[in-house]
This record gives sequence, C-alpha cells and structure tokens, in this order.
Amino acid sequence: MAIKFARRMKGLKGSEIRELLKLTENPEVISFAGGLPAPELFPIEEMKKISTLVLEESGAAALQYSTTEGFPALREHIADRMNSKNKTNITKDDILITNGSQQGLDFAGKVFLDEDDVVLCESPSYLGALNAFKAYSPKFIEVPTDQHGMKMDELEKILETTDRVKMIYVIPDFQNPTGRTWPMERRQKFMEIINKFEIPVIEDNPYGELRFEGENLPSLKSMDMKGLVVFLGSFSKIFCPGYRIGWTCAPKEILSKFVFVKQGADLQASSISQREVSKFMDIYDLDAHVEKLKEVYSRRRDLMLDTMAKELPEGLEYTHPEGGLFTWVELPSHLNAKVIMQDCLKNNVAYVPGGSFFPNGGKENCFRLNYSTMTDERIVEGITRLGAVLKQHMEVKAKA
Amino acid sequence: MAIKFARRMKGLKGSEIRELLKLTENPEVISFAGGLPAPELFPIEEMKKISTLVLEESGAAALQYSTTEGFPALREHIADRMNSKNKTNITKDDILITNGSQQGLDFAGKVFLDEDDVVLCESPSYLGALNAFKAYSPKFIEVPTDQHGMKMDELEKILETTDRVKMIYVIPDFQNPTGRTWPMERRQKFMEIINKFEIPVIEDNPYGELRFEGENLPSLKSMDMKGLVVFLGSFSKIFCPGYRIGWTCAPKEILSKFVFVKQGADLQASSISQREVSKFMDIYDLDAHVEKLKEVYSRRRDLMLDTMAKELPEGLEYTHPEGGLFTWVELPSHLNAKVIMQDCLKNNVAYVPGGSFFPNGGKENCFRLNYSTMTDERIVEGITRLGAVLKQHMEVKAKA
Repeated sequence: MAIKFARRMKGLKGSEIRELLKLTENPEVISFAGGLPAPELFPIEEMKKISTLVLEESGAAALQYSTTEGFPALREHIADRMNSKNKTNITKDDILITNGSQQGLDFAGKVFLDEDDVVLCESPSYLGALNAFKAYSPKFIEVPTDQHGMKMDELEKILETTDRVKMIYVIPDFQNPTGRTWPMERRQKFMEIINKFEIPVIEDNPYGELRFEGENLPSLKSMDMKGLVVFLGSFSKIFCPGYRIGWTCAPKEILSKFVFVKQGADLQASSISQREVSKFMDIYDLDAHVEKLKEVYSRRRDLMLDTMAKELPEGLEYTHPEGGLFTWVELPSHLNAKVIMQDCLKNNVAYVPGGSFFPNGGKENCFRLNYSTMTDERIVEGITRLGAVLKQHMEVKAKA
Repeated sequence: MAIKFARRMKGLKGSEIRELLKLTENPEVISFAGGLPAPELFPIEEMKKISTLVLEESGAAALQYSTTEGFPALREHIADRMNSKNKTNITKDDILITNGSQQGLDFAGKVFLDEDDVVLCESPSYLGALNAFKAYSPKFIEVPTDQHGMKMDELEKILETTDRVKMIYVIPDFQNPTGRTWPMERRQKFMEIINKFEIPVIEDNPYGELRFEGENLPSLKSMDMKGLVVFLGSFSKIFCPGYRIGWTCAPKEILSKFVFVKQGADLQASSISQREVSKFMDIYDLDAHVEKLKEVYSRRRDLMLDTMAKELPEGLEYTHPEGGLFTWVELPSHLNAKVIMQDCLKNNVAYVPGGSFFPNGGKENCFRLNYSTMTDERIVEGITRLGAVLKQHMEVKAKA
C-alpha cells in the first residue's frame, strides 16, 4: 500500500538546521548552528508576576477563545512600537498577531503563490522562509548580493525579463544568514523598482531592533506608498521565543487575506500569551530590556570576530554584522562546508553549512555562525576548535 | 493597480461563524452561535500556581525555542490519555503538538491535497475544517447521513465510483454541527471499507471525552490496522482553548510529513503553554475536571432540550446529543434559517444558520445551537425568544 500525498510533499524535507540541532544537543558540542536568543537574559521573574496578574485581572478571557486578528491592546503596543522604531504610520488595525513571524511566511506563500509562480529572494536567504514557501511549489530566483545586500541593478534586470513574479522576499536588516544590512540608498532604489513593477514585498524583520552600531534605518514598510509591503515582526528575538508571538503588518487588502488564512490555519494566536506579552509592555520597559540584549550580543559579536581574526586561517572572508545574531563565512571556492562539518562535529564544534540557504543550490563553500547564545569562554574555545579544523582542510588542499 | 493573489484566495471567505460572533458581541444578544466552553469552569486558580511553578522550575527552557514535535512530557501525557480514553496503543512518538486541533486540519490539507483532489465528509460537516481544506482547492463530496452519522452504504458507493479521493474527514463523536455519534457497527463497517479502499482518514475528536450518557466507544484510530487514520485531539474543550494546544496522532509515515509541515508553518507550538498544560496534568486531576464539565454541560443540554420541547413550534426536528456542545435543528424545508436569523437578531437571540456546514451548499432550513456557554436563565430566555420568532415564520408560511 502506498499513501498518496500531495505533490508538494516531494519537495519538502525537514530543515537541515533542525536536524543539525539534534546532533548538537550533546553538551560537549559548542554549537554556533542555532539562532537562539540568550536564555540567561529572559525576564523570568517579571513573567512570574505578569502571569499571575493576567490570570487575576482577566483569567476567564485569557483562557477563552478570542478574535482571529489578535488582542487589541497588544496590537496597539505593536503599532506604537513600529511607528517609533520602523518609522511607519500605522494603527492596530493594520496588525494581525501570528505564531512567530514564521507563520507570516507560511501565510505569504498561501496568499500569493500558485504552483510555478516565481519568488525572488536574496542569495543566500533564510532557510526557514524558503521551506515555508516551498509548500506552495514556487520557483525561486536568487537575486545576487554584495556586502550591502541585494544588488538593485540585478533585481531590475530580473523583473524586466521574468514572468509570474508574485512576491519578493527580503531581510534588509542584519540578514539571516549573512548579517548584512541594506544602506539607505538601496532601500530607496528598491522601493522605486517595486513601485514601477508593483510586486508585493515580504519584509522580514525579526532582528531590526538589535542594532549595535551605525544608524537606525527606516523600514521598507515606512517607504511604501502603493500598499505593496508586508512587514513581518516578532517578539522572539527582542523578548522570548517561547510564547510564539509575532505579527504581520500589511496593507488592508492584503491583511484581510492573511486574516482569512489565519482562521483556517489555527483560528487565532494564544489568548493568554498575547495578554502576557502585552501586559509586560504595560508595566515593564521593553526598550530597556532590548538595550540589555544589545549590550551582551554586541560584546559577543566583538569577541567572536576578534577570535576569528586570531584563530581562523588566512584566505577566508566573513561579514562584520552591525546587529542581529549571525556572521557568515566564505571559504575558498574548492572547499565544502558540509564535508568539513563532519570533522567539526568530531571536534565538538558546529555551524550551519551554507548550501541550504541557496534555494537553487550550488554554493557549498560557506557557513553561518551564531554568536548570541554562547558564553564568552565557549565562543573563544569553539572558534579555536573551528580554526584548527579549517586550517587542516586548507593545508591539505594547499598541498594537494 | 491590482495585486495578484493565489487562485485559492478566490474560494476563501471569512468564516460565517466568526462574522456572526462579531454581531453577537452585544451583551443583550443571547447567542447560541458560538462553540465556546464555559469560562466559569476554567481552572484559573490552579493555573496561577502552575504558571509560577513552570517558570520557577524551568523558566529558561519554557521561554526558549524547543523541538517541532513538542514537549516530550506532554506528548507522554497525551499518549497515556488516548490509550485510556480512545482505546489506542500508541506512544509519545506518535504525537505532534499543534495549535489546537484546527492546525491539524490545515496540515491534513497541505499534506494530502492537490488542486481538484476529492475530500469526502459527512453532510453536514464542521465549517472550520471545510475552510481549512478549501485553502488547498479540493472538491468536496458530501456523504449522506442519518441520525447515526455517515451512511456506510452511501460511502461505499461513492468510493466505488469516484477518482482522486485523497482523504475522508469525519467526526464520529458528538459531531459538529449535528451532535450525532456513530454507533459501534458503523465504526466497524467504516474501517472495513477504508481498509478495502486504503484512503487516509482524518478523525477529528475534540469532544469525545464529553459524553453525558451511553457507553464510551472506541476511536477509529484504535481500530486502524493499516496505518490510515490520523486522529486530531485538543485541550480546548476539556481544559482551556486559550493556550491553543492540540495534537495530531498519526502513523509514522504520515506524522513525519506533518512534522515537516509544522516546521515551515510556525516552527513549533508555544514552549511555555505546552509545559503549563503538561504540569497541570502532573499535579491536578484532569479527569475530575472533565467530570465537572460534563455535569454542567449535561444539565444545560437537558434544560435546552426541555425548553425546546416546550417553546419551539411543532414540525421541527432536532438531535438529542449524547455529549459534546451542539444540537442541530431542521425546519420544514420551505424555511430559510439565514432569513429567520435576521429576525432573531432583532429579538436578541442568535444561532448559526446551517447552510455553510454543507460544502456544496443548498440546504438552508437548518441551524446549530450551542448549550455549553450559557447560564440556565439565558438558555430558557433565549430558547423562548427563538421559539417566538420561529412560530411567526411557521405561521406566516402556513397561512400563505
């Protein structure tokens, strides 16, 4: 007997990151593979107070079904925050609460994509988004990037010569996996192009508030005059991922489709989680919490980059992220990060091989490192181990 | 400018129930339209203790990302419970935690359905499931039912003569919307037919534990010898919906596809909600809680049925549910429940018109009543108001 699944299931495999995380659960392994926020900074004591307070003040409502759009007070907090941090001019009615921003990615696929439609994305791009979109069987065209993100002349060329482009997926701030940020001119040029071709844009922004240096730049959403930009936000990186609370901010016509899709997908986000996150913002200072995160992550980034300069072999390139959680390493083109990863695991250190961040494959000489989760000691020790493995591989190849 | 959405969006509309719930938010309206559990029975005091305890014992893990499959201890609780209540023989490895059982419906559509594939369902069937499946653009064939649920000879006839049947969606216990339950012989006959045709079955069981009378019957899942039955369960009706914790129990090959789909859809269910529900089951008696619910709901069902017998006009038929949340009313065939609903709203009483529970439309002389949410006084008053409106409509037609 063979059960007949939908065609789309042929293209879907488990995320390489998730499978790797399983291998690296061994506490001996120093894993730079994840994208986890630092658990020692979670506001556990505060949340004890908050959870009691929410149940005392509105227990019955917190435990009951509520509306698909989400808890109004939380949506107001988010609108205020976006207007302040992302320079938008929105209200709570522009917001739908989702299960992390990941759910917004799935919904974007559902709302926009028929089989064989084209999605444009940065090359490389976030693996979890590519996997979410793949469920709707699109084709991907990767737009070339440089150290400042997507190359706008390349984007324009692709749009001029390609049919059925249904959406463009981008992470302009501290991109996953590269850590790169688009400068102002690129954002302006991008919006010019978008306005000309009138293609919906998914602006994924889970890391935007985690800027360690340089100037805060306006979101694409804030520059959207034609109702084309869908902004995805999340509390996972600035607060805690455990509640699974994120949001979609979209133009009315698009948002109403996302709300329909949310109804069918799971009715609504958790009533109690929404109220708890909202209450935290009522009585504590989320900005101050984010400042604390930035201080720690910024120090860890510095330590990682300094240790990389000392311990990694010559002939590599890596990014200097101005914020976010990741740096991205490119090896000489003859090396394969998936192969080297096997030796890394033998030496109890891990990263994410870069190949799976390219939806059309073919680039294996790169990997992603995360610096937000580790203690200082483990960062130094892990990068030192990594450096030793890489040196071996680069020497072998040099001799061969 | 016209944004191009996916073709599937043409068929998707907001759930009629959700739109109605908005109209009935006015506290003057006695609404039998919802499907809400009684909020006065939520274990608020217990959850205060639980939430503090979870944060004290495992705060960092509760607020962090975790695995896609779900929290192991919760999955063990669920496996034990299903083995006891649903007569299955499963382990935690057969369980995926989802956002309510609704998310399992969406995933079933994603995993099994290509455009124009056929879904069989009971006629009528749960509106929220139909809407979830519609996102994958299938065709629906409604299998006729009688007071004992799906008619098995009709099912067999349809399977013999229909191509591309990819799944069969059923609610054998206290069905939504009718409140009907399949007797043992139907379950056995159903499994015989399924084994012959080898079609995957989605057994939706959110209400199964809420049996007020009669004997507990084995789940289809427990009678599945060929790995065809996907069982969807939920804590929403036996505990609280606010946490959005449900589960899918499926044969290995199918479950692994659901897990892939969960990764792309939203990575995982809430870490903290899963731990809280699990901890409740560790230290409190969920069975005793369910007994309390059954006592209250059973009394409300009796009161509603007694009041209906007194206050509704002659010439109607309605179900006597042995459990669950709903009864189903059929009017004489010339009457339209959507039209009558307008008069009901004027008289501050509401139900869900039955038409939208038929995926292919065409049956408008029926409606669904919920008895779990209301106080005794409001049940009597609401049914009395409803009776007055119905009498008017039936008299007008009788005179005409």
